[in-house]
Amino acid sequence: MAYLLVCSLFLAVGVFASDPELVSDYAAEPTATNASFFTFTAFRGHVRAAPGAFMVRKASLVEFPGLAGQGVSMAQLFFQPSSVNPPHIHPRASELLYVLEGSLTVGLLDTTNKLFVQTLGMGDAFVFPKGLVHFQFNGAQYPAKAISAFGSSNAGTVSIPATIFGSGIEDQVLTKAFKVGTDTIQKLKAAILKF
Amino acid sequence: MAYLLVCSLFLAVGVFASDPELVSDYAAEPTATNASFFTFTAFRGHVRAAPGAFMVRKASLVEFPGLAGQGVSMAQLFFQPSSVNPPHIHPRASELLYVLEGSLTVGLLDTTNKLFVQTLGMGDAFVFPKGLVHFQFNGAQYPAKAISAFGSSNAGTVSIPATIFGSGIEDQVLTKAFKVGTDTIQKLKAAILKF
Amino acid sequence: MAYLLVCSLFLAVGVFASDPELVSDYAAEPTATNASFFTFTAFRGHVRAAPGAFMVRKASLVEFPGLAGQGVSMAQLFFQPSSVNPPHIHPRASELLYVLEGSLTVGLLDTTNKLFVQTLGMGDAFVFPKGLVHFQFNGAQYPAKAISAFGSSNAGTVSIPATIFGSGIEDQVLTKAFKVGTDTIQKLKAAILKF
Amino acid sequence: MAYLLVCSLFLAVGVFASDPELVSDYAAEPTATNASFFTFTAFRGHVRAAPGAFMVRKASLVEFPGLAGQGVSMAQLFFQPSSVNPPHIHPRASELLYVLEGSLTVGLLDTTNKLFVQTLGMGDAFVFPKGLVHFQFNGAQYPAKAISAFGSSNAGTVSIPATIFGSGIEDQVLTKAFKVGTDTIQKLKAAILKF
Amino acid sequence: MAYLLVCSLFLAVGVFASDPELVSDYAAEPTATNASFFTFTAFRGHVRAAPGAFMVRKASLVEFPGLAGQGVSMAQLFFQPSSVNPPHIHPRASELLYVLEGSLTVGLLDTTNKLFVQTLGMGDAFVFPKGLVHFQFNGAQYPAKAISAFGSSNAGTVSIPATIFGSGIEDQVLTKAFKVGTDTIQKLKAAILKF
Amino acid sequence: MAYLLVCSLFLAVGVFASDPELVSDYAAEPTATNASFFTFTAFRGHVRAAPGAFMVRKASLVEFPGLAGQGVSMAQLFFQPSSVNPPHIHPRASELLYVLEGSLTVGLLDTTNKLFVQTLGMGDAFVFPKGLVHFQFNGAQYPAKAISAFGSSNAGTVSIPATIFGSGIEDQVLTKAFKVGTDTIQKLKAAILKF
Repeated sequence: MAYLLVCSLFLAVGVFASDPELVSDYAAEPTATNASFFTFTAFRGHVRAAPGAFMVRKASLVEFPGLAGQGVSMAQLFFQPSSVNPPHIHPRASELLYVLEGSLTVGLLDTTNKLFVQTLGMGDAFVFPKGLVHFQFNGAQYPAKAISAFGSSNAGTVSIPATIFGSGIEDQVLTKAFKVGTDTIQKLKAAILKF
Repeated sequence: MAYLLVCSLFLAVGVFASDPELVSDYAAEPTATNASFFTFTAFRGHVRAAPGAFMVRKASLVEFPGLAGQGVSMAQLFFQPSSVNPPHIHPRASELLYVLEGSLTVGLLDTTNKLFVQTLGMGDAFVFPKGLVHFQFNGAQYPAKAISAFGSSNAGTVSIPATIFGSGIEDQVLTKAFKVGTDTIQKLKAAILKF
Repeated sequence: MAYLLVCSLFLAVGVFASDPELVSDYAAEPTATNASFFTFTAFRGHVRAAPGAFMVRKASLVEFPGLAGQGVSMAQLFFQPSSVNPPHIHPRASELLYVLEGSLTVGLLDTTNKLFVQTLGMGDAFVFPKGLVHFQFNGAQYPAKAISAFGSSNAGTVSIPATIFGSGIEDQVLTKAFKVGTDTIQKLKAAILKF
Repeated sequence: MAYLLVCSLFLAVGVFASDPELVSDYAAEPTATNASFFTFTAFRGHVRAAPGAFMVRKASLVEFPGLAGQGVSMAQLFFQPSSVNPPHIHPRASELLYVLEGSLTVGLLDTTNKLFVQTLGMGDAFVFPKGLVHFQFNGAQYPAKAISAFGSSNAGTVSIPATIFGSGIEDQVLTKAFKVGTDTIQKLKAAILKF
Repeated sequence: MAYLLVCSLFLAVGVFASDPELVSDYAAEPTATNASFFTFTAFRGHVRAAPGAFMVRKASLVEFPGLAGQGVSMAQLFFQPSSVNPPHIHPRASELLYVLEGSLTVGLLDTTNKLFVQTLGMGDAFVFPKGLVHFQFNGAQYPAKAISAFGSSNAGTVSIPATIFGSGIEDQVLTKAFKVGTDTIQKLKAAILKF
Repeated sequence: MAYLLVCSLFLAVGVFASDPELVSDYAAEPTATNASFFTFTAFRGHVRAAPGAFMVRKASLVEFPGLAGQGVSMAQLFFQPSSVNPPHIHPRASELLYVLEGSLTVGLLDTTNKLFVQTLGMGDAFVFPKGLVHFQFNGAQYPAKAISAFGSSNAGTVSIPATIFGSGIEDQVLTKAFKVGTDTIQKLKAAILKF
């Protein structure tokens, strides 16, 4: 029965995403009997992206259940030289990115398709509003590292290349949407599926 | 001074998007002295999209100031045969689309890039969750017409083709993101800019 | 057990009405394995109210479980000539009504008891703020049809005649509240109960 | 200019009713330079309703500007024997009523028109959910006094008798809605307007 | 199974603290089959604090399950002469305190550590914003009684003396934080633990 | 006039703290004409706290106006060996702390005065729920550095020592609250005021 209760708790958490504050102060919940409930250790250790690649580690509701109801989460971003975090959207939170090492060129697009570009040095921060397309690019010769804060325990990510060209949308929809021929669309699909 | 007050009102409305309910009941606001404040007439009349084209008319906060604080808006969608409403995202509301005439094939992508496709007949409805990519396509021989409801007075729209390929993002970012050559990216940019 | 989980999900949905956005993107929920989860077909087909009568069909959380957490719903309204949708309140959402066929006279009352009346033609829209009394009347010779959008998946309806005179409130409360005699109150009660 | 700023502040407050918490801590606002900003004195002194009558004193955003953004307000209710607080709705908050003196019969109607009736003695409390019709009646021989708490700084009140029969709604709408003759409707209208 | 459902309901209630409005209108919930569900009787009867002491009775979600989702609660406060309600914080709601009998000196501290002090007479009210430290003191010769309204069904209380000196925080943390010697810290700890 | 508009914008921002999402996409706001609006550079450069001291740098609404409406902010924390960030509360957001360098002992108190203590190494994270008392202590021989994310653009800070003993609360209130003599209270007040 305990299992069922836990399941229904997480189901409920899954449905409501805006992270209202907690009422229980944890005292009555067996999962919070010690400080480990509030601790996250999976960011320990050094990581390194493959050459030319970008990688991310998340501390969101999925990886860190203690964030349930707290309305905040984090991600670590690692960029090898010339790597890109492709255009994407977080549907449930704004992102405040802070550069820990190296430098990053960031881009943000508003709903009038206006592009805002900035090159950030170590120690700089940039905010990407909720639901708007943005990307980061390491144009420097050395790796870059950043940490991002999100105003939701589960911000979500919609990656534009994978969503558009890696999900099986029919060619006739994409040719009309992007106003190019089937060959171009198939080339884009093949490129995404190769990875 | 009245002008200033109105300006600051709209500025405030602009910043807060989640449409909490009203407190004033309109009685004290000069803009609501009669029923016209609550009435929207710009959906009157028949419209027709160009052959092969899609068009939209909106009744959102921008076109209908009486929606301020009401948390709801509408759009009319017109599809000629073979037309597409390209993949896009509404960052501030879910959309409930209802087919008034004809039929529509709709697609929805979740954050795992899973594609949900459905062909809707006249009288059918489909819900697109907030912040997820979706599109509509008229694959039939006759025009289609739909009306959409949004749970925000200003849902916003991020059009993927125009945002990604029509906003001036550098080629090197896009080639890495989409894993194709510069020539393909330039072809996509040119296709969008032509319109 | 799956049944239990679904039950507890709906129970939770029942308690929280303000429809915060979703976190799960549906992928992990067995109920969303295909596009039918997002599709609503009960608006199909032609309906006709009885002569002189008004009728409504709803696409809310009750009829369309896929709306859970989406913050939007719809209703179809059918008016025979001379029919009335009696004064009522939606406690959980504003309503944006759009006239599909015919014409409608709508009325809205603010909390100072000021009446706003408007006659809408085909294609016109009108917004009724959350929690305020409103009604619609078809004063024309031909039927009218409208579609309404709500900024909640379950807006709720409090019908004034049925609530006040059809629920068994004691005569002495109603005579004092409406400042009329017991005979008038009993006549009003009898009229409602007859239907 | 200070006046203009204050005006725009209140305008903004007027539009957003859900009372999110404050960010400013008052320190930077000239209106909060001393403790009077947080103090309300208009509940001082004894009041007495006219024989057979009900009266109310409110401490809401209108009477107590210090409540702006606090999400809470109060009202004092005074009932002479046989008096009624007529059926009404608070569109923006639930009400928790606490009987200070005497006794009260309270009634609540849910959206299925089910009536919940309770007779409260001194010291008892009752909660009326947001947006549902409710009333109070003093059936005892001696006066009663209550204090109500609301989960909004401005809960609003829609009085059913005054809204329906004192606002000028056309007879033909009301006769159809209440299914009685014009004479009964006119008697109800006359009764309300007499006061 | 009914038990399980109820458990999961309360678990869900425990996680979401911001008290969004209800959707179910209670009709479908077995716990609301009669008016007792909405009634609270534990405030009945006279209580008296010990000489020099302060005591509180609460009507929050814990004591009154009918408040679930209503966003409002109450507390009764009893002050013997010279008694203090120690500095504390309600993390989830603002408090509107109303003096029923006697007089009270209240204090509020904003985040710039500015102190707002007010002496309230019978019938006066004072609002303490959410999350700010405040206290009450009965400096008069006679008892005082107050009733407080909260804009949450479960406002929570963090008592500063008990939290800081009665919870086992290490001496070296407290000596550095309060900039006093270990002897002073141990005296403070002993004083709290004695009670 | 532009100045007035900006003032009223910030006044409105000051009143509503829960950071709902944006509607304007910045395009229409003159303050967002370039990427600098979204960029924060005040975290650049190395800082060093005085020996034995703790210091903090914030990127909140006050220092970074571009965070308005984004629901997220950051702080940098620097700890010399043996330094303490004294017990405090953030009234408007949970905090997710991530250790960049060194190690930190953190403490959290729930509303039952239960203490949760954890020693974090480099790369570890810990979440402090909104409105609960917490502190950090560097018990190691070398400096520590952390970065914290908050789920609000302006989380606010209530420092317990400064609020309780540095704000001028009367001795008789504090002696009763902490159950110690006037001499102890005066020693605590003097210690805080000395800094």
